[in-house]
Amino acid sequence: MATIKDVAREAGIAVGTVSRVLNNRGYISEETRNKVYAAMKKLNYQPNETARSLQKKKSNMIGVIVPQIAHPYFAMLISCLEIAAYNSDYRIILLNSQGQETLESEFLKLCRRNQVVGIILCNGNLDIAKIEGLSIPVVTIERKMEGGDAAIECDNEMGGELAAQHLIDRGCRHLLHIGGVTNDNMPAENRGHGFMSRCSRYPVEARMIHVPFEDYRMQSADKLLNQFLDENPEADGIFVSDDILAAELIKVCLKRGIRIPEDLKIVGFDDTDVAKLISPPLTTVHQPVEEMAEQAINLIQRMEQGEPAPSRTIFPVELVIRETT
Amino acid sequence: MATIKDVAREAGIAVGTVSRVLNNRGYISEETRNKVYAAMKKLNYQPNETARSLQKKKSNMIGVIVPQIAHPYFAMLISCLEIAAYNSDYRIILLNSQGQETLESEFLKLCRRNQVVGIILCNGNLDIAKIEGLSIPVVTIERKMEGGDAAIECDNEMGGELAAQHLIDRGCRHLLHIGGVTNDNMPAENRGHGFMSRCSRYPVEARMIHVPFEDYRMQSADKLLNQFLDENPEADGIFVSDDILAAELIKVCLKRGIRIPEDLKIVGFDDTDVAKLISPPLTTVHQPVEEMAEQAINLIQRMEQGEPAPSRTIFPVELVIRETT
Repeated sequence: MATIKDVAREAGIAVGTVSRVLNNRGYISEETRNKVYAAMKKLNYQPNETARSLQKKKSNMIGVIVPQIAHPYFAMLISCLEIAAYNSDYRIILLNSQGQETLESEFLKLCRRNQVVGIILCNGNLDIAKIEGLSIPVVTIERKMEGGDAAIECDNEMGGELAAQHLIDRGCRHLLHIGGVTNDNMPAENRGHGFMSRCSRYPVEARMIHVPFEDYRMQSADKLLNQFLDENPEADGIFVSDDILAAELIKVCLKRGIRIPEDLKIVGFDDTDVAKLISPPLTTVHQPVEEMAEQAINLIQRMEQGEPAPSRTIFPVELVIRETT
Repeated sequence: MATIKDVAREAGIAVGTVSRVLNNRGYISEETRNKVYAAMKKLNYQPNETARSLQKKKSNMIGVIVPQIAHPYFAMLISCLEIAAYNSDYRIILLNSQGQETLESEFLKLCRRNQVVGIILCNGNLDIAKIEGLSIPVVTIERKMEGGDAAIECDNEMGGELAAQHLIDRGCRHLLHIGGVTNDNMPAENRGHGFMSRCSRYPVEARMIHVPFEDYRMQSADKLLNQFLDENPEADGIFVSDDILAAELIKVCLKRGIRIPEDLKIVGFDDTDVAKLISPPLTTVHQPVEEMAEQAINLIQRMEQGEPAPSRTIFPVELVIRETT
């Protein structure tokens, strides 16, 4: 690969002058400038961002750590983060922790060694202590953080309330909440709290089930969901805290001959593409992922520049009514 | 952030000695080694990969350029690439070209400036001429490349043949192929060729429709698919070259009261998670994305080490029979 020295040699001009052209510093005659450009073009020279990073002691990279890439929610989030990063002239290093704490911990070190300007930690199980003392801005998305770090969430509690209210308004009297992944570190658990709290204001029956999924995979969902339906035959309205699990539930119901929405009404959470793609299309709680992603990049940028950033930002959610209710 | 000099000062040891400890070079007493480790720990020192990259004139980064992240096929592919890269000690810089040629072109330059060891170009519209003279290994996935570059594909032609044979075996006599994104640069167009070629061996009617989608978005699919069904009322077997479009078709059919598979049989392509998630679950052609991703990383590694790499690798596909046929 051509270096700045090669360009200088090719142009017959001193290295310092070429550097001034590249950095647009000081007076350079049009003729000299053109010679340098011609030499750069001929040698296919590209300024080296690694060298620049070293000089600046920083890269233009943001580390994004997610527990799973292929899950539609994370795919959507990563996509929005990449676009927001690009618009602010950052690049994304994508790291998939597969839900393993040891990997997350290793990735934090890796981000540091690569001099990222910030880290966006989506969900996951990492012990907060590992983040402290990292001296890099860390923004979390849909993940609880103790202390003064920057956390971005959607209003999970309100989402649960909206789901409950909608099912009750549609005439459901035996309500059920199926929680997806449960973990004390996740604000998602507030979906269930909001749901139960709203139900308690009405003369309806409400129950909450936590699915003991260890990860986001869907292999064994069928069996569990069938079991829940067996154990709750009177349920006429179910709020599932994840669109994918809601789609699985719809599949199981249709197999059992349960009509949706006539016999059973279902509300999901996230509003991923899957909600629109299945039949019947899923009523769900819309999480404003695009805005959350933009905020994450914006916070990193602010923290990079030493500006104060809010420690917690909560975005509103809204109910999107489709055909399962 | 602490530097090697800070570590040396803290440990009361020469910088050169600290460097020898870090690089595990030459004899170092246990006592000295322990002092260095203690100082590193106290100062939270991390060796700087940016500086190392500069010295090696290479990073451990692979640029991955995709036209869309949130599409389930690309989400699955990116996920597999990230895992394969991690296992070979590489990292992924993820770049989303949104199908725009100008962005792809800019990303290639960006990869070069960041001294990536290789680029994986998935699909997309980039003019080949822009890749030539890049002096970085470029591996393409599901994308045609003229000349001697390394292309990875699945056996699209065979996929089309398997779909046709299966529909014919199931009794279909009026077959239709709906091509998803069509572009001369994409091996995916061979799906249709394989389908038509296999149909031509039997006394059946077969037609091919190209959907003029400009991108992978699904907004207007309903209207188009309804139009296709209106224009082909006799169709009893449809092969759709993309699971997502197949899911859209199923949704449209169910709305129209067309029973699947009784009235109409449908086969998709890719075998993304969506195929399993919808009702009825989709019969589709399985693309071995995991193996293709591993091969992509493997080829970049080989080319990085100056070893010869096959210019074209084609992976077999297989039909996964579910409930739409």
